[in-house]
Amino acid sequence: MKKIEHIGIAVKDLEASNQVFAALLGKPHYKIEAVESEGVRTSFFETGPNKIELLEAISPNSPIAKFIERKGEGIHHIAFAVDDLEAEIERLVSQGFTILNTTPKKGADNKLVAFLHPKSTNGVLIELCQEIKS
Amino acid sequence: MKKIEHIGIAVKDLEASNQVFAALLGKPHYKIEAVESEGVRTSFFETGPNKIELLEAISPNSPIAKFIERKGEGIHHIAFAVDDLEAEIERLVSQGFTILNTTPKKGADNKLVAFLHPKSTNGVLIELCQEIKS
Repeated sequence: MKKIEHIGIAVKDLEASNQVFAALLGKPHYKIEAVESEGVRTSFFETGPNKIELLEAISPNSPIAKFIERKGEGIHHIAFAVDDLEAEIERLVSQGFTILNTTPKKGADNKLVAFLHPKSTNGVLIELCQEIKS
Repeated sequence: MKKIEHIGIAVKDLEASNQVFAALLGKPHYKIEAVESEGVRTSFFETGPNKIELLEAISPNSPIAKFIERKGEGIHHIAFAVDDLEAEIERLVSQGFTILNTTPKKGADNKLVAFLHPKSTNGVLIELCQEIKS
């Protein structure tokens, strides 16, 4: 784990929340990107070496819609940056963590990602992400 | 806002969770510190330029005990590092945010801290923290 890459925050209204977080962080989001496979529209802000990712559901079956239904708006996950996602998955499996997808998948913001099941990490949904080199 | 200083995670058993996060992050916590005024015992891990703070309630009236009762274990707050806490509080008040303590108070890990009310930030409890210079 190199650093916190970003914090994912589930929101109901991406446009309204973009204004809130721009005011909070003192600068606007730098991109909006849909991730169809996850049923979300995302918005990214920079804060020094880290990012904030706002997530809005674009379908009622999206994990974000279900999260908001269950818990309300709020912090959804922490993402850690890693250099070698496959090696990190292997290391964590050997440590007894439950990985939701042991095969990395394409996430937002040019990343390969994998998620850990929150039951093995004190209720915290953790994402690992590796920059895709072009 | 300079960066994410740390993520605060509410846990039931600090010793057990220290082992989980040491395995996850690949290194042990670097300190344990009680913050009597908040009714918590905290544990800190480094991950690059950021930290993870685990929080365990030491009294049933602690905000962490109430948080876990209501929502279960999980992410409790995001803390952003700032250079000048008083100036940042003033800026955020002028932007319409609700600050829970407009007078900075002493937090864990040698910091002056202030909290924003989650109702003005999409359900996210946000802490601002400034390093205390010795």
